[in-house]
Amino acid sequence: MPKHVDHRERRETIARALWRVVEQHGLTHATMRNVAREANISLGQLQHYFSSRTAMLSFAMDFASEQNALRVERGLHSLGHPAHPRDVLRLMLTEMLPLHPDARATSRMSAAYVLEALHDDGVHARARDGLLHGRAMVEELVRQAIADGHIDPDRDPVVETDLLLALTGFTTLLELDVIEPQDALAAIDHHLDRLFTPSG
Amino acid sequence: MPKHVDHRERRETIARALWRVVEQHGLTHATMRNVAREANISLGQLQHYFSSRTAMLSFAMDFASEQNALRVERGLHSLGHPAHPRDVLRLMLTEMLPLHPDARATSRMSAAYVLEALHDDGVHARARDGLLHGRAMVEELVRQAIADGHIDPDRDPVVETDLLLALTGFTTLLELDVIEPQDALAAIDHHLDRLFTPSG
Repeated sequence: MPKHVDHRERRETIARALWRVVEQHGLTHATMRNVAREANISLGQLQHYFSSRTAMLSFAMDFASEQNALRVERGLHSLGHPAHPRDVLRLMLTEMLPLHPDARATSRMSAAYVLEALHDDGVHARARDGLLHGRAMVEELVRQAIADGHIDPDRDPVVETDLLLALTGFTTLLELDVIEPQDALAAIDHHLDRLFTPSG
Repeated sequence: MPKHVDHRERRETIARALWRVVEQHGLTHATMRNVAREANISLGQLQHYFSSRTAMLSFAMDFASEQNALRVERGLHSLGHPAHPRDVLRLMLTEMLPLHPDARATSRMSAAYVLEALHDDGVHARARDGLLHGRAMVEELVRQAIADGHIDPDRDPVVETDLLLALTGFTTLLELDVIEPQDALAAIDHHLDRLFTPSG
């Protein structure tokens, strides 16, 4: 196996260890030392792969985003071709919510990263770029759905995109057991039904 | 001044110091020692008012909720009587978002408390109770607006309540400068316009 693949794999193993620490104990406990222990390697070995906690956090966040995108991609394959834009948006939205263990791990990593961003300019810039990228993808989907007649052309694509992204607000309600998963899914379906009804 | 009033005032002063630490440096730094320093008192004095970090955090969160409710109450006074339910909901939603310094302080305190709740059963129960209380208030408003003919009776009050609360998802988009305050307000207004249009 080429050395760079092994290097990448070790970094991913460390990233998953960091996710577990964040998920089970919170970002406060995601020190280099604790992550090394969770990954079952020495602190020195960890430092070989990441020169700083920030570098480790950023890689773990990028990896979380990639894994999220991969889950969406796999979901799209099972939707058939061409997938209806309503189903694509539903998949993207629901994979961002803590509705199953993998999604919960990446969702908690993401929430922790956002809080870290408030006090670190570098993290802020990276987190912002990630969200802007996701926002642009959703807006492109909405604009295409309008062009294809799936959404009423009177709808404002910018406003509709922002309202769709705001639905990630279900994360807190789900994490605190204020609503059940089926409540969040029902609400998202209602929202999408109204968006994709030309008279709505 | 009666002693219990002084006691309450000191606790509120400490709570505001904790908010500042959370807002400027994050929850990780909200130790008893750092909060005492920010409040300009000794650690011993702080411990006289709060026996543990968790007790201090919980008081600071309750105080944040109270201050939020107070801002909404003041806003209601300027709306006139009787206030239209659309305006009441708009006020409640926008005061939960980090759109001005006071709201940003309580919003960040709340976000930090939610993350703490994921790893502390006691905090989880308290945070959940607070959100359930807020959810019940919004649902009551929605049900009354349906009864009064302001919202189409075909709308499901539970789904509409959940969709309204999900709009707090704008918090992350605002904190990371992904959208501007006017974008969030425009989207909230669009959502409320459709909710309060009987044909919508």
